[in-house]
Amino acid sequence: MKPRAGKPIIALAMGDPAGISPELTAKVAALDEVRARAQIVIVGDRRVFDAGARTAGVTIDMPSIAAGANDFTRDGNPVFIDLGHLDPAAVERAVPKEQGGQFALANYRHALTLARDGHADAVCFTPFNKKAMRLARPSYDDEIVFSCEVVGIEGPASEFNVLERLWNARVTSHVAMKDVPERLTHERIHRALSLTDVCMRRAGFNPPRIAVAGYNPHAGDGGNFGREEIDVIEPVVERGKREGIAVEGPFPADTVFLRAKNGAFDAVLTMYHDQGQIAMKLMGFDRGVTMLGGFPFPICTPAHGTAYDIAGQGIANVGATRAALLLAAEMAGKA
Amino acid sequence: MKPRAGKPIIALAMGDPAGISPELTAKVAALDEVRARAQIVIVGDRRVFDAGARTAGVTIDMPSIAAGANDFTRDGNPVFIDLGHLDPAAVERAVPKEQGGQFALANYRHALTLARDGHADAVCFTPFNKKAMRLARPSYDDEIVFSCEVVGIEGPASEFNVLERLWNARVTSHVAMKDVPERLTHERIHRALSLTDVCMRRAGFNPPRIAVAGYNPHAGDGGNFGREEIDVIEPVVERGKREGIAVEGPFPADTVFLRAKNGAFDAVLTMYHDQGQIAMKLMGFDRGVTMLGGFPFPICTPAHGTAYDIAGQGIANVGATRAALLLAAEMAGKA
Repeated sequence: MKPRAGKPIIALAMGDPAGISPELTAKVAALDEVRARAQIVIVGDRRVFDAGARTAGVTIDMPSIAAGANDFTRDGNPVFIDLGHLDPAAVERAVPKEQGGQFALANYRHALTLARDGHADAVCFTPFNKKAMRLARPSYDDEIVFSCEVVGIEGPASEFNVLERLWNARVTSHVAMKDVPERLTHERIHRALSLTDVCMRRAGFNPPRIAVAGYNPHAGDGGNFGREEIDVIEPVVERGKREGIAVEGPFPADTVFLRAKNGAFDAVLTMYHDQGQIAMKLMGFDRGVTMLGGFPFPICTPAHGTAYDIAGQGIANVGATRAALLLAAEMAGKA
Repeated sequence: MKPRAGKPIIALAMGDPAGISPELTAKVAALDEVRARAQIVIVGDRRVFDAGARTAGVTIDMPSIAAGANDFTRDGNPVFIDLGHLDPAAVERAVPKEQGGQFALANYRHALTLARDGHADAVCFTPFNKKAMRLARPSYDDEIVFSCEVVGIEGPASEFNVLERLWNARVTSHVAMKDVPERLTHERIHRALSLTDVCMRRAGFNPPRIAVAGYNPHAGDGGNFGREEIDVIEPVVERGKREGIAVEGPFPADTVFLRAKNGAFDAVLTMYHDQGQIAMKLMGFDRGVTMLGGFPFPICTPAHGTAYDIAGQGIANVGATRAALLLAAEMAGKA
């Protein structure tokens, strides 16, 4: 951890303009608790932001600075990089549009570039709309692929789901279930485990207590219902222990989240998408944070979406966005 | 539904004697609410039962009748079929033993036989200990296989998990995950869907609103992450609708339980074991009921286990056992 005078600089990219992102951006920038912990540099269009602030009912005294600015103070007073690229009059509420996708992509690219080039310590963004992103960029896959491209890394990068103090990481994600078994290799599982340990240490867990879920029902029941636990997962857990990771498992997936919820573990490493998502969403993950790990700096965003159904009413809950900023601030600079 | 004078007869088999089953059997038999809805015929050893009643702190005035008795009144006053096969002095608390397995198997077999032969309308049992069952009968697989054998049916039979008003049924269960895709056939899914509809109608849902979970993340995302939804699951859902089943789906598995929990559906049909179990256990399924469907009569048991850690203290919660008896009473006779 490098000592640093002042607060960590978080480049906060405005997300989709047709949903709750503008009002969330304004709400979070107005929070004293966030200002006390981070130097926010918002990237967007000032007019869209100001419209969001009016919706949110917050007043923010904040200078707009030039798009090329990259030398920021660290005193905690937010500044705004105005790309001047979207007229709020052109935004149609609750409709995913190409221009909305272009807006969010440009903001996010700018924020990533600032961090990549050492001018910011972390990146956050308010929710994107995937349809709008694909209208703007048909090849758009997801935030991880796009971020790797902009930052110029090959990976491994991975998404973490964080709900209060509980983390969920996964070995495979958007993959057909029939293709999961062949992807559960020693190398992949070990990489996900190591990345979880590294990222969570940056977030202040010392060490994080990581539970590894089995793959089969009852974690294979000693080989009766599948052998991945015996052949692959257990050896990775043993290797992790030898490497100093506080890891246990594999545990049956249908009880490991109950144990984690009750405080036995800080994280659960799951083998496939729904194994973790079923549990995290039931526990209220929409109130949580998605953290992209594996980059030279943390990237955090609220787990919920653009909430088109309540956009413009000023009632959007800022809790998950607040948690995203605070997690990014905690992790910033601890590379 | 056949009209019948008096209450449905439920043959209640005492489960593993080393855990909480004896005290639960006594507690549930003492409940006025259960007596008002069912004629309980307990099958076990009277001495073990009486020891359980002392532990539970309940007093029950109940006649013991001969093992061969099969003509029961329906007035709601419990009776006890005393097989006289286990001396409570021989029971070692919290230890799974062959004699405990033999005790539970004999009671369960007797209860099933009564129902099979038309002398009881439903079967319930207090928790078994799988290790004890296997000590007593090394080939013991699970309750479904054993019940099919005793009742003399080939199936299809299936386990349902019931938590308050929410049911979960599954297409595959104790199967290695890599073998699940080949088992997700049109026939199997349709059979599970039909059985769910039939059993839930017997339980008073008219009709049950059944959500079918997808198999892949995001229910395949339109074929991007697997095709089982398009190729197999959707056609079954369409067929179910044509057959008059109130079925919808396939839905992404990571949100369907949230919707069901919020009242949108009465049941979720899942494709594999953990898909449902992760959700149901997080929602508190240990307070729920396991119902074996596909038999000529309902078979219900509390979802929790023998709780060796609290056996003999009299603190075991009778809630799930009570729910099992009431569900069996509701379903009895509606074949």
